[in-house]
Formats: sequence, structure tokens, C-alpha cells
Amino acid sequence: MAEESLDAFLESSRNLVDEVLDRWLPGEPECGELALAMRHIVMSGGKRFRPALVLLGCRDVGGRDEDALGAAAAMEMVHAYSLLHDDLPCMDDASLRRGRPCVHLLYGEAMGVLAGDGLLTLAFEVLARGTPANESIGAMTAALARGAGWDGMVGGQVLDLAAEGCEPDLAQVREIHLGKTAALMATSLRLGALAGGGEAADVDRLELFGRGLGLAFQIVDDVLDESLDPVQMGKDTGADADNNKLTWPGVVGLTQAKADARQLVDESCAHAEGGQATGLLVALAEKVLSRQN
Amino acid sequence: MAEESLDAFLESSRNLVDEVLDRWLPGEPECGELALAMRHIVMSGGKRFRPALVLLGCRDVGGRDEDALGAAAAMEMVHAYSLLHDDLPCMDDASLRRGRPCVHLLYGEAMGVLAGDGLLTLAFEVLARGTPANESIGAMTAALARGAGWDGMVGGQVLDLAAEGCEPDLAQVREIHLGKTAALMATSLRLGALAGGGEAADVDRLELFGRGLGLAFQIVDDVLDESLDPVQMGKDTGADADNNKLTWPGVVGLTQAKADARQLVDESCAHAEGGQATGLLVALAEKVLSRQN
Repeated sequence: MAEESLDAFLESSRNLVDEVLDRWLPGEPECGELALAMRHIVMSGGKRFRPALVLLGCRDVGGRDEDALGAAAAMEMVHAYSLLHDDLPCMDDASLRRGRPCVHLLYGEAMGVLAGDGLLTLAFEVLARGTPANESIGAMTAALARGAGWDGMVGGQVLDLAAEGCEPDLAQVREIHLGKTAALMATSLRLGALAGGGEAADVDRLELFGRGLGLAFQIVDDVLDESLDPVQMGKDTGADADNNKLTWPGVVGLTQAKADARQLVDESCAHAEGGQATGLLVALAEKVLSRQN
Repeated sequence: MAEESLDAFLESSRNLVDEVLDRWLPGEPECGELALAMRHIVMSGGKRFRPALVLLGCRDVGGRDEDALGAAAAMEMVHAYSLLHDDLPCMDDASLRRGRPCVHLLYGEAMGVLAGDGLLTLAFEVLARGTPANESIGAMTAALARGAGWDGMVGGQVLDLAAEGCEPDLAQVREIHLGKTAALMATSLRLGALAGGGEAADVDRLELFGRGLGLAFQIVDDVLDESLDPVQMGKDTGADADNNKLTWPGVVGLTQAKADARQLVDESCAHAEGGQATGLLVALAEKVLSRQN
């Protein structure tokens, strides 16, 4: 029941967000290869998981989807920029992303950097111009910047690179995953709740839900990276081991990693209680745990 | 007279902005090499020209300096990020910036990318949290993103790279310079005027001033690049020719380039009429024209 309505929500959410993304991204005739590169990474069939979190955060506090669509598109653009820069030769040197060749292989390394810069910048414009509640834009902009910046995602990426080849250490892996993955998911819930006009306590509660969920999401990602082939994942797999990345199962083993993800999801779901989208949030958390790619 | 008070303004503006930048940038113990890299490029004695434009835009509409300090610091962070990314091996492959080795030479190429990402992101946080007028933050965020993004600075950088080795063409050089340099200067004036609560007509007028001034600034930069040595400029010079860059004097010659800069400054100064900081704006434009480094 809940599972069925989650799938319906995810499909309608993806359609809504894809439309907003398409409207905001530059077009090819006016802006040439830069537009092609930005569109290549964004419009390549991602799951739109972060936008869905934004819309759920908004619904959970009683807001309407249209209040949060700007923030939802912004989160997807930030996510896409992070993929572009992470895949660069000087970072993870990846070749495959979302089942297609990386932007830097198609358009060159400089364009990989610049298209990422363009997406990160555009995210803030879409957030500012696509959010009806003008009085909330300041808090939302600050939250997005904090979650994506030196104390969030960028900081996590720096830790991740610095930890390559280091001795396995759970506290360190946790900090990397909190920064690289959980920060942006927590921010997605926070932005949605702010866009929907939520009370401070609900905004914080939903952010905690997103943080635990994000950590579980990344643990599952590590587990899948060890288990699947690139076609199933749509990106390079086994890359963590090849790059000497610290991973959760690399520290505690596959079985314990799965148990840890289960526990994190259970703890997150406690934060999903009491709002207006509890059922969908819990169903989404269960889906994260059981995802196969 | 005006010149003397301009110098006093620039010094006090620089001190104010340096203090705000220092307060917002991450510190070394909490955030390690990322903090060092971000501080290396920002706290390296730049002229703080864009922040000065922000404060002047604010003063010109009757605002107080403290209304615009967040936006001023944000503009400097965006400028610094653009220097980091422009200097990367896959872009201009520079070695010297603001008289010091480039970040990617000191901390590696990945850190050059990530420190830039961190600065661009932090700029939006500082703008949002450092602007007292909450109702203006949406418009300011959108303006900063537009000026810095695919239709502004990032777009200009893409055109610049694509034009390397092309036949000299004045319309093309103009478009590159408008994007790479003038967009951010125009945005600086716009943000200042918005932060100061200016009327729409004044906001647009000041943006036009900044646009013309920015174009003149870049023409003078091209002229100096052909004429000075690296120690005088504090960055690699002759690099434009080495990289087969399209430059203004490369198309029209040095004499005509200087005449064009003069005319642009005169046209800009017409837009400086009628506000409360006309004298300082005009003096600043004259200083741009006569600068030696």
C-alpha cells in the first residue's frame, strides 16, 4: 500500500522536477557546448532522489509541491555539479556516469570544471527565483550553501581524497559519508520544510531524518559498489577499491555494513513521526535500504 | 581632492571587507588544507576592487556600508574562486597569482578545484547571512548567480577558451570581456544598490556604470599584460599571447585600445550622475583608466 503510493509519488515528483530543470537549464543555440555539457549530466535519467526529499519535507509540514520546486531543482543541480567535479581526472578520474560517458571525456576537462561551476551557480538562482516565499529565501540560501560547502559536501570530498590509502577507520568513514552524501540529503529535507513554511522544530526534525537516511544511503552505495557490475550501477564500480577509498564495508565487512544501514534507517524513521508525510518518508527509507542499483 | 578621498575610501573599504572575509573563511584547525587553500587565494592582498564597487553602489542610493558588507565579501569570494579555477592546468595553466604560487601548485589540482567550489558556495552563504535586509536577499542571490553563471562569468570563460587561436574579432573579444570581467563588476554595483534599498531605476543605472567600467578595466588589463613584467603585475604576463588569447589590443592595437577604454569610462561616468556617490564613482573610473598594475 505505502510502497505503491511511494512509487506514484516518486514518478510524479520526477516529472515535475524534470520540467523545472528543463526550463531553467540554458539551451544549446544560445550557449553552445556549455549548455550541452550542463544538460548532459542533469538530463540523463537520474533518480531525482534529492528533489523527492525536498518535496516530502515540504509536504510533511503542510506545504504545496509548487512551494518547493525551485529548491528541488536546485538540489538536483548541486548534486549534478558534484558528480561532474568528482569525476574529473584530478579527482576520481571516472569514465562512466548515469550510464553515459563523463562530461570531461566528451567535452574536455575545462568544460567539466566550468559546467560544474555553471550548475552550482544556477542552483542558487533557481532557488532564489523559483521559491514563492520570499521571506524564506535567505534561510534557504544559507542552508544550501552550508550543506554544499566547506562544512558539508565540499569538506567531505576533501576528507575523502585525503583518506585514500589510509588505514580503515570507522569514525573517519562516517565523517566522510556525512559530508559527501548525508549533508546534501539533510539539506534537501531542510529546504523543503523551510519552503513549506514549517516550524523550526519540524525543520530540524526533518533535517535529522535526512542525515540518517543519507548515511544509510551511502553505506548501501558502498555495499553495491562491491557487489555489482558497471552496467547495473550505471557508473564505474569497484572504483572504491581501485582508488583505495575508505568504505563502510571496507571497515566493518559487508554483513555488519548492511546491519548498520538497517539501524540508521530505523533511527531516521523515528524522526519521520508526527508530520504529514510520515508514510511516504518511511517507505522511502525502506526503499533506500533495499535498492539494487 | 576627489582622488584623495577615493584613496581614503578604498583603504577603509578594504579594511572593512578584509575583516568580514577573515570572519567567514574557515580556519585551519577545524578544516585543514581546505581552509589553507581558500585563505591562500582570498587573503593575499588583492585590491578588493569588487567589494569597493558594492559599497559604492550602496552609498550611491543612500545605504550604509554595513548593509552591503555581506555582498561585498561575497563578490570577493566569487572573484577568488574564478581565479582558482581559471589558473588550473586544464584552463590557463598559470603558476603565479597575486604575487604568490597558485593554489594547485601548493596543494594539488584537486584542491584547486575544491577550494574554488568552497569559495563559490560560501559566497552565497555570506550574502544570505550577512545582508540585514532579508526582503532583498532573493533578488541579490538571483543577481549574483546570474552575473557569475552561464550567462555571465562562466559563460565568458567558456567563450575565452573556445576563442584561443581564433582570428581576431572585436565583437567576440567584447563578448568575452563582458562575460569574464564586466558581468561581475556590474553585479557588484547591482548588489550594493539592492542592499542599500535603491529604487529599480538606480539599481539599473548603477549596473550599467559597472558594466562599462568592467569592460574598460579588462581592456586596460590586456594592455598591461602586453606591457609589464610578472613582478609588476603579480601574475603571469604575456600569458595572453602565449595562450593565443583574443585580446582587445590584439585586435585594434595598443593605441586604439587605450582610446576605447577612455571612451568607455566617459560613457560609464554618465551613468554615475545623480546619485549620492557620484564623485567617488567617477574618481574610481579614472583610477581604473590610469592604473599601472
